[in-house]
Amino acid sequence: MTDYRRALEEAVRFLREHDRFLILSHVNPDGDAIGSTLAVAAMLEQLGKSYVLVNESGAPDKFSFLPRFERICNLSQDLAGDTFSAVIAVDCADASRMGDVRHLFAPDAALLNIDHHPTNDAFGAVNVIRTDAAATAEILYDLNEAAGLPITEDFALCIYTGLLTDTGGFRYSNTSPYNMEIAARLLRYGVNPGDVAERCLEVITLSHVKLLRQALQTLRMSHGNLVASVFVSRQDLESVGADREDAGGLVNYCRNIEGVEVGVSFVEAEPGTVKVSLRARSRVDVSEIAKQLGGGGHAKAAGCTLRGTLAEAQERVWNALGQALGVNADE
Amino acid sequence: MTDYRRALEEAVRFLREHDRFLILSHVNPDGDAIGSTLAVAAMLEQLGKSYVLVNESGAPDKFSFLPRFERICNLSQDLAGDTFSAVIAVDCADASRMGDVRHLFAPDAALLNIDHHPTNDAFGAVNVIRTDAAATAEILYDLNEAAGLPITEDFALCIYTGLLTDTGGFRYSNTSPYNMEIAARLLRYGVNPGDVAERCLEVITLSHVKLLRQALQTLRMSHGNLVASVFVSRQDLESVGADREDAGGLVNYCRNIEGVEVGVSFVEAEPGTVKVSLRARSRVDVSEIAKQLGGGGHAKAAGCTLRGTLAEAQERVWNALGQALGVNADE
Repeated sequence: MTDYRRALEEAVRFLREHDRFLILSHVNPDGDAIGSTLAVAAMLEQLGKSYVLVNESGAPDKFSFLPRFERICNLSQDLAGDTFSAVIAVDCADASRMGDVRHLFAPDAALLNIDHHPTNDAFGAVNVIRTDAAATAEILYDLNEAAGLPITEDFALCIYTGLLTDTGGFRYSNTSPYNMEIAARLLRYGVNPGDVAERCLEVITLSHVKLLRQALQTLRMSHGNLVASVFVSRQDLESVGADREDAGGLVNYCRNIEGVEVGVSFVEAEPGTVKVSLRARSRVDVSEIAKQLGGGGHAKAAGCTLRGTLAEAQERVWNALGQALGVNADE
Repeated sequence: MTDYRRALEEAVRFLREHDRFLILSHVNPDGDAIGSTLAVAAMLEQLGKSYVLVNESGAPDKFSFLPRFERICNLSQDLAGDTFSAVIAVDCADASRMGDVRHLFAPDAALLNIDHHPTNDAFGAVNVIRTDAAATAEILYDLNEAAGLPITEDFALCIYTGLLTDTGGFRYSNTSPYNMEIAARLLRYGVNPGDVAERCLEVITLSHVKLLRQALQTLRMSHGNLVASVFVSRQDLESVGADREDAGGLVNYCRNIEGVEVGVSFVEAEPGTVKVSLRARSRVDVSEIAKQLGGGGHAKAAGCTLRGTLAEAQERVWNALGQALGVNADE
């Protein structure tokens, strides 16, 4: 039996030994955190156990289609001084990711830690960690099987949501034959893949659209059309009521333009500070560019933060890109 | 043995009996047409057969990452009066979809027709049609298996491309457990899902981006923010060098805005003619709206073409939406 199988067996015992659970995921939860929280709830109902679901920062409305979503409490809700002796943390790399929740733990509290992050520090009494899982939901699928539980429609929807969101719609490099096989199997339990994708991946905020409108006015093709870039000033952010989060996906519009090798967004995050995001297709390793400028990242997605004006940041990035591509900015 | 299995067996005999094949797909080919064409080529190489690949309108460059892509001829290329007695048509609902290719057929030509369209009229001597397949590539996967051939890396990439593109990245309602299971299996043969998705689904034309920039200037939220719409005039299309195809995805940006129930794009296709596209989330059946206005479609995606100005078209559509939503346009 592998260590992973042994950990799953231990986790099954944990679920059977206790009767009442506190289930936690990380602050600012994503689809895998919420999907995993609710998948555990679905499993515990099958086992006839009771539970309370808490997320320190609350659960984003976009996941309200998931069963039992309304049962996720945030800390401002009154838990009446309640404490728990069995705690399950899902998708948390370390204890601090759960937020300020210690007051909910009974003095004898035992914690089951289920996670896929490579940096997980095994902070639980029982730890089920598989770092080659694309999502914590993938591990919960294994746990449900190890517990001999049937796949319910509710469980299937929660697990699919975790798999879909943490693989960017089966497009990130963590997409594996195994997690796609699981996803395929879950479709046999009533999951509507188009509906889940629409709710989780396709919704954009009005602030993002307004910012996109603003940013596209600044679209520049440079370096013989191999580079496309957009600029967002503090004023742009403020005028559309957007924050830096809303500026997140802008660089992808640049990179996705036919023939473009590198997309760049320059966002004035603070006065005198420019956040540069770089996305590459294949000819340039943008982590090298970012490193030269004091930042970092991956070959296809990297970034750095530069002091100075937007124009100064542009000049430094364009020079570096000019060297990497062998084409000047104004060619 | 089902009719489908019997048809697959017949198709295997067809492949074994002949030595030299002409492989055709439909004009204006998409990812399934090109992926299927090249998947057949990969199979024929395994069988030691020779072949010529033709697409009347040529193959779009975005699929040039597929193996043997450069072997797809268009009709302007000289086929030296060559004719073929064994023809394979993939992803063509009827003979006219192949384009003007009859002069390539020998007088005794036999045709193998492999397709998934419900309207397929069985125009081949041998017909392998499965209308619940999301893609013709799905049928070719079955054919490869029926022929007892191994899954090669080339074959896997072609089939994955067909499955991915015809299901909109596993998001359309034709996504099935079976086609996702096949996709998962193909990942074991070296397919990089992120790379294929980037090439096939994420590339946008510069004209589209420019048109998006223009269209977002006209973004209007109406009906208590339940409707988002954009307008594209003839002048907009001409000023960015775009055609109606480039205007295709604009309506999705509207529909995808958080809280929006119906997205609408109004595109002045010809002077005095407005093409209206409607996309819904769940509260309204837009095929009903489109029907009222002389068009048609599905509950979530429909359209119509109206005579008159953009303002006139807007008024008619907004009134209909106001009734369906129970909220006036200016609320």
